[in-house]
Amino acid sequence: MMKRIALTGAVLLGAALSFNAIAAAPPTPEEKAAADITDRQAVFKLLRLSNAALGAAARANNADAAKVALDRMQMLAKMIPEVLTSDTRAFKATKTRASDTIWDNKADFDKLAGDLQATLKEVADKGAAGLASAAQTIGPKCGACHDRFRLN
Amino acid sequence: MMKRIALTGAVLLGAALSFNAIAAAPPTPEEKAAADITDRQAVFKLLRLSNAALGAAARANNADAAKVALDRMQMLAKMIPEVLTSDTRAFKATKTRASDTIWDNKADFDKLAGDLQATLKEVADKGAAGLASAAQTIGPKCGACHDRFRLN
Repeated sequence: MMKRIALTGAVLLGAALSFNAIAAAPPTPEEKAAADITDRQAVFKLLRLSNAALGAAARANNADAAKVALDRMQMLAKMIPEVLTSDTRAFKATKTRASDTIWDNKADFDKLAGDLQATLKEVADKGAAGLASAAQTIGPKCGACHDRFRLN
Repeated sequence: MMKRIALTGAVLLGAALSFNAIAAAPPTPEEKAAADITDRQAVFKLLRLSNAALGAAARANNADAAKVALDRMQMLAKMIPEVLTSDTRAFKATKTRASDTIWDNKADFDKLAGDLQATLKEVADKGAAGLASAAQTIGPKCGACHDRFRLN
């Protein structure tokens, strides 16, 4: 009986530790900056992946697959301002294409992310009718921010 | 007039290139494996980020923030089987914690991802009532797959 209680306790503790893995060991400022940079890169990686899936869906005229891709892109686009809240300019150890100018122009940056969100919603709301022009509609919204705030 | 047409053409071409950036230059097998590995790592990074947000929302008893986090986790969990379709065992240049055993047990792996999806939906469907036990309910589903298929 005691053994069973102890085991249950261990399982619950394990679950709590797994859930709070980030909080368990406080990161150094350098570690936090590195994690913040890779988290935001993850958002853009999945945006690119979903955008490629949308392109494939559009070429195949597959409205269902396009909807999945657009749902994902909308969710990811909403994460852009969130994952760019930590000013990492002082930390140069982790390679990033994010321009230092973002941090003095955060309102402009967030507005460009908002423009992308709005455009994705417009394309999604059109359903199958929006497929043929999806690339021409969405691409410039990606590019507007890349041109200003993404390094080569 | 010609200049205007040329400019418009350049903008459309730019949009198309941006949209099809991945298709533009066919990657080598090594490059493709590296991209596949970092794409799947992106899914797990955002799962961890959203799980941390869920934990914070649960501690603050904020059901709205928890819903956002759970929506994201559900979307990301659905991507797990998709981003693990490319067998990268032969490519060791990019560091990965994905066990080679995944590829001989892909049905088991996908089933564990399906278990996580189902559990996330259950927790999300409970709304505010599911918050207090979210960590204890979700954590073991993450752990079940990590224990078997994630390297240290």
